Amino acid sequence: MPGNTFGHMLRLTTFGESHGQSIGGILDGVPPGLHLCEADLQKELDLRKPGQGATSTSRVEADIVHIQSGLFEGMTTGTPIAFLIANTNQHSKDYDNLAKVFRPGHADYTYFQKYLGIRDHRGGGRASGRETAARVAAGAIAAKMLAGIGVEIMAASVELGGIPVDQENCDLSGALARPYFAASDQVIELWDQAVYEARKAQDTLGGVVQIEAKHVPAGLGEPVFDKLSAMLGHGLLSVGAVKGIEFGDGFTSARRRGSQNNDLLLAADTPGGSVRFASNHAGGILGGISSGQDIVIRCAVKPIASVPRPQKTVDISGNACEITISGRHDLSAIPRIVPVLKAMTSLVLADAWLMQQAICSSL
Amino acid sequence: MPGNTFGHMLRLTTFGESHGQSIGGILDGVPPGLHLCEADLQKELDLRKPGQGATSTSRVEADIVHIQSGLFEGMTTGTPIAFLIANTNQHSKDYDNLAKVFRPGHADYTYFQKYLGIRDHRGGGRASGRETAARVAAGAIAAKMLAGIGVEIMAASVELGGIPVDQENCDLSGALARPYFAASDQVIELWDQAVYEARKAQDTLGGVVQIEAKHVPAGLGEPVFDKLSAMLGHGLLSVGAVKGIEFGDGFTSARRRGSQNNDLLLAADTPGGSVRFASNHAGGILGGISSGQDIVIRCAVKPIASVPRPQKTVDISGNACEITISGRHDLSAIPRIVPVLKAMTSLVLADAWLMQQAICSSL
Amino acid sequence: MPGNTFGHMLRLTTFGESHGQSIGGILDGVPPGLHLCEADLQKELDLRKPGQGATSTSRVEADIVHIQSGLFEGMTTGTPIAFLIANTNQHSKDYDNLAKVFRPGHADYTYFQKYLGIRDHRGGGRASGRETAARVAAGAIAAKMLAGIGVEIMAASVELGGIPVDQENCDLSGALARPYFAASDQVIELWDQAVYEARKAQDTLGGVVQIEAKHVPAGLGEPVFDKLSAMLGHGLLSVGAVKGIEFGDGFTSARRRGSQNNDLLLAADTPGGSVRFASNHAGGILGGISSGQDIVIRCAVKPIASVPRPQKTVDISGNACEITISGRHDLSAIPRIVPVLKAMTSLVLADAWLMQQAICSSL
Amino acid sequence: MPGNTFGHMLRLTTFGESHGQSIGGILDGVPPGLHLCEADLQKELDLRKPGQGATSTSRVEADIVHIQSGLFEGMTTGTPIAFLIANTNQHSKDYDNLAKVFRPGHADYTYFQKYLGIRDHRGGGRASGRETAARVAAGAIAAKMLAGIGVEIMAASVELGGIPVDQENCDLSGALARPYFAASDQVIELWDQAVYEARKAQDTLGGVVQIEAKHVPAGLGEPVFDKLSAMLGHGLLSVGAVKGIEFGDGFTSARRRGSQNNDLLLAADTPGGSVRFASNHAGGILGGISSGQDIVIRCAVKPIASVPRPQKTVDISGNACEITISGRHDLSAIPRIVPVLKAMTSLVLADAWLMQQAICSSL
Repeated sequence: MPGNTFGHMLRLTTFGESHGQSIGGILDGVPPGLHLCEADLQKELDLRKPGQGATSTSRVEADIVHIQSGLFEGMTTGTPIAFLIANTNQHSKDYDNLAKVFRPGHADYTYFQKYLGIRDHRGGGRASGRETAARVAAGAIAAKMLAGIGVEIMAASVELGGIPVDQENCDLSGALARPYFAASDQVIELWDQAVYEARKAQDTLGGVVQIEAKHVPAGLGEPVFDKLSAMLGHGLLSVGAVKGIEFGDGFTSARRRGSQNNDLLLAADTPGGSVRFASNHAGGILGGISSGQDIVIRCAVKPIASVPRPQKTVDISGNACEITISGRHDLSAIPRIVPVLKAMTSLVLADAWLMQQAICSSL
Repeated sequence: MPGNTFGHMLRLTTFGESHGQSIGGILDGVPPGLHLCEADLQKELDLRKPGQGATSTSRVEADIVHIQSGLFEGMTTGTPIAFLIANTNQHSKDYDNLAKVFRPGHADYTYFQKYLGIRDHRGGGRASGRETAARVAAGAIAAKMLAGIGVEIMAASVELGGIPVDQENCDLSGALARPYFAASDQVIELWDQAVYEARKAQDTLGGVVQIEAKHVPAGLGEPVFDKLSAMLGHGLLSVGAVKGIEFGDGFTSARRRGSQNNDLLLAADTPGGSVRFASNHAGGILGGISSGQDIVIRCAVKPIASVPRPQKTVDISGNACEITISGRHDLSAIPRIVPVLKAMTSLVLADAWLMQQAICSSL
Repeated sequence: MPGNTFGHMLRLTTFGESHGQSIGGILDGVPPGLHLCEADLQKELDLRKPGQGATSTSRVEADIVHIQSGLFEGMTTGTPIAFLIANTNQHSKDYDNLAKVFRPGHADYTYFQKYLGIRDHRGGGRASGRETAARVAAGAIAAKMLAGIGVEIMAASVELGGIPVDQENCDLSGALARPYFAASDQVIELWDQAVYEARKAQDTLGGVVQIEAKHVPAGLGEPVFDKLSAMLGHGLLSVGAVKGIEFGDGFTSARRRGSQNNDLLLAADTPGGSVRFASNHAGGILGGISSGQDIVIRCAVKPIASVPRPQKTVDISGNACEITISGRHDLSAIPRIVPVLKAMTSLVLADAWLMQQAICSSL
Repeated sequence: MPGNTFGHMLRLTTFGESHGQSIGGILDGVPPGLHLCEADLQKELDLRKPGQGATSTSRVEADIVHIQSGLFEGMTTGTPIAFLIANTNQHSKDYDNLAKVFRPGHADYTYFQKYLGIRDHRGGGRASGRETAARVAAGAIAAKMLAGIGVEIMAASVELGGIPVDQENCDLSGALARPYFAASDQVIELWDQAVYEARKAQDTLGGVVQIEAKHVPAGLGEPVFDKLSAMLGHGLLSVGAVKGIEFGDGFTSARRRGSQNNDLLLAADTPGGSVRFASNHAGGILGGISSGQDIVIRCAVKPIASVPRPQKTVDISGNACEITISGRHDLSAIPRIVPVLKAMTSLVLADAWLMQQAICSSL
């Protein structure tokens, strides 16, 4: 209930503040017999660290993950997998001026209200984007579960500073090799330019991330309240900077007629093959349940709130004041949010798959 | 877990198929002492019935709600409130041709896959939009809980068939008095025309619904995974036709710079008053927790999949065929979805408020 | 959370007060393809109605169950199964004197405290034993799920009024054919005599119920907090009159030495057969997980609190007074509680089995 | 769902195997503003370590706890509290012979069945009693929450090796100062003798633990399925060695008549005071909800399964064999289980109290 646990049969519980001892989590429900090692988690965590393009902080976040439990002789045992990431590079002093002032666009004011004035202000405390490292570590395990049944999840930046990648040029499979984890080479120069200008203007940028899951079996997602889209929405909207989400053609679908938006079903092209679809406007989810088509999601990512210039605000006594945020901050959540959103997608799909097993195997 | 329950401290469990005996639900967690009667629920249900604009089906759905439990002498007792709505006007024969064919854009194929070929095809069974009546009934109770602390929730259609209401002309408070529950009088004629043309073209329309919650106390929503936006996203995306959602400026925020997107905090304008904000780009949620500003949400609603003309599809044996959907169908989920989305918003906010009570009162 | 839902993958939510419109519930998570009809539920409900031995009330509780959803052409569809039992024979007048007085041994005082003075006092309201009818109806569905994998659950009265059945004479399989659902014919006369004397003395009796589950597959139950014994304990202790529970030899085990209490493992007696055990002191559960042996549980059932003679108590203003409970009451919860405890056992085991499917089928 | 999380509003998730890196947990839902430090947890952990009487292992388990998160300037912040206890003194070699043989009375066979043959056999892995250290650490936090509202929880050994403390001599408040955490000085010599004889006989002992909670506010516990007794039963029966539980007079109540068993209500003895009860046969819980009387629970603790002498068993191939368990083992779970059972009681009561706040403060 208190909000730090996610999932049904596959459950992630996380902990940790930006400037505490460590952050980490417990992933419960991983079936026994999955080959797993720390390097599987570390590889994904390394994608989240600063340095993938021009937008990142100069903070060095080593983020070395240590697994505490749930493995034996290189395999999962079915018991909870706990993992820790030590906090090693905190400059708490950078945040001293934030103890008594609310940063605009941050959770400072709302945490103050929620927790009756008590909060760890250093680096944003629990509200820091740093908590997403735990999601990435756990998501790596979920992705490995899914890989075992052939599901592949990819994510890429498809818009930065208002400059989109054309949908027809989107190539998510090559994104990890590109700066910004961009979905296309064609935008790199434009994005570099946008970042340069924003930095010069002491400002920050937002963007859009696209996620695709391929070879998801049909039948995942639960009816009515726990539709696959609802669970994915829950998971992805729980990532701090995400302010919008759409499935398949999303808001564009809302402007279409039904005859344009329906994905017609076609007979399999080989005997005994799967039903095919003439299009994928629905983004792989029909009635809240996966159809076997690619799942396609886009997330709106707001610009980083920590703009490096003076802003008007109030202090904890309610008096007007001005704040200039120092510290070391990213210029955009793009691209570091990309592996985070991929991780949340993995967690949701692996959870839905486990739940479907109970149905599949009970007849 | 199996997906027909929603909420934490305030929990709604629903049941029912389109052509079964009845639909309904159990709302558990309503505190004792709330004045409540069937008319409170019926009033909201009446807003969902056909006839609010030109888009609706000619089906007459009386949808009379009967409360079974949880009330004593006109007040809630703290025990579960069960309610039933009989299914009275089913024309199951209209659906006979659907037993062996998958309708494009519907859940027929995915339910078939999920439940191993077993499904109640009549009227869409459990996947029918009819299940939303139970949400509306329960949402009316949640709304009454919230009204007791001054929270007011409004919803309106802000786009139909690609024709939007200008944001500056949006007046949600008057929507229930307008056709289509439109957010402005200015679009009514245009929407009538769009509906006329779509009907002539044997086609259907999508749209956008905006929801606003006023006077929500600051501090609602749980950190990390159960952010208020994540819970609202879960609830709203669980409504069948919703393919996208945005909070505050949403996808537009993704195109802004941080300095434009941050909502600056201002001192209260009266001694002892609340902090104010210079703008509300965030839609009333910061770091996943309510800020005390209006909560603003927009939902993309796809066009009705039941287009009244021949469509290519396959049958349950996988053979190509053609289907022409008869039956009585809405031309758009707008406006009947409006009270449904309002109901889901009410359920999430009332739940978040109950959870916050445990924190507020424990110090 | 608010307490009217039970189970994880198989979830029962119930509603209803003793003198409300109806009682009932929603069972969510039943897999598709189970043959089921109302008679399956009614048969178990009929075992709960008055008249199985001399202890019962003269109330006639028809308790006719009506399924509302989740079935199609005689089979479950995987969607929630809602069922209703109308309240038809209430004599609310019998309870008028209870509106302002707390009955000793009942929940009157504690509900009054919990719900801030608001309660439906008629017949005990939600705290009435009447709510157990919904458990029995749902348990019948769970039992049918289990029967499909060969699991058989039996329950019987093994003690009444301090007169036990000798363990060596226990025959649970024949209990439903005996008065009191007794585990042996040998006690019937003694129990008749005890009931006669208690009635003469205007008093009531308690007893002990034994439950056995045969052919439960090894491996059910989740480690640490959701051990099978913990889940069974949760379910069985949630039945009103149950004040104690023991698994296998239970409190007797606590008095033994380890060498006496361990169940030694033996090789299968046929090639490829299952491991056997030399004894079953553990009651079929080791480390919280089923071993494949019979699960054996005993529940202590307190005497009915509604004794038909004057008792000292206080009224809702806290003033001392005397109460004489009229109305029509059982002399013992034995035997009507027997099918209730069987139902709870069925629900827990079916839930544990569904959860285990996710693990079994994921490798 | 997977079983390593406990509680509703106050949720404990634990991890760790006997011979892994560390064990620990995350306690989520602790309200902000509670003064807390590692010493609060360490003090309770020290009560669990070997050496409280003659029954303990010669293993030295330092069990030093380290809090990772959720505290700021000596106070809880409302965010999850993670804690770790390193595993430092493992002799994994002692367990090498257990990799392929099932120990009688342990979870070896059932884990093998559940997890499809995959398990960490060293020291019992996840099924080791070592996991209870995490419960004790978390329980210390819950106890501190409860102390803030005046609730005091005590536990003591009331029976060892079949030698009980007379109920009238029970003094739980002095137990921590006595060997075996005994409820009375009168049994110490007898228990020493019983332990001496059991050790000589290469055998182990069981016993009974009594728990009392004083000054619990009336109104805790949720109706129907989450009765306070059901939640306590769930928590206490989830502790490995517990095979039975009773509330108040428990199994003795089952042998009484109603007139003997009802606790009559009496007027307050001072104006404005609380209602009193003439007795406490119910153990402080009526209809599943706390009455304000002392909560009284007794748990049956089976003898330690690791008897230090040859036992018949089978290996993982199903062949008959003999096992002699070496390693360092307690002779009884008494008294080390005492702080564990106290901890589980604290967790349940603190959780129930948080849930009740939502009701209390919502009117």
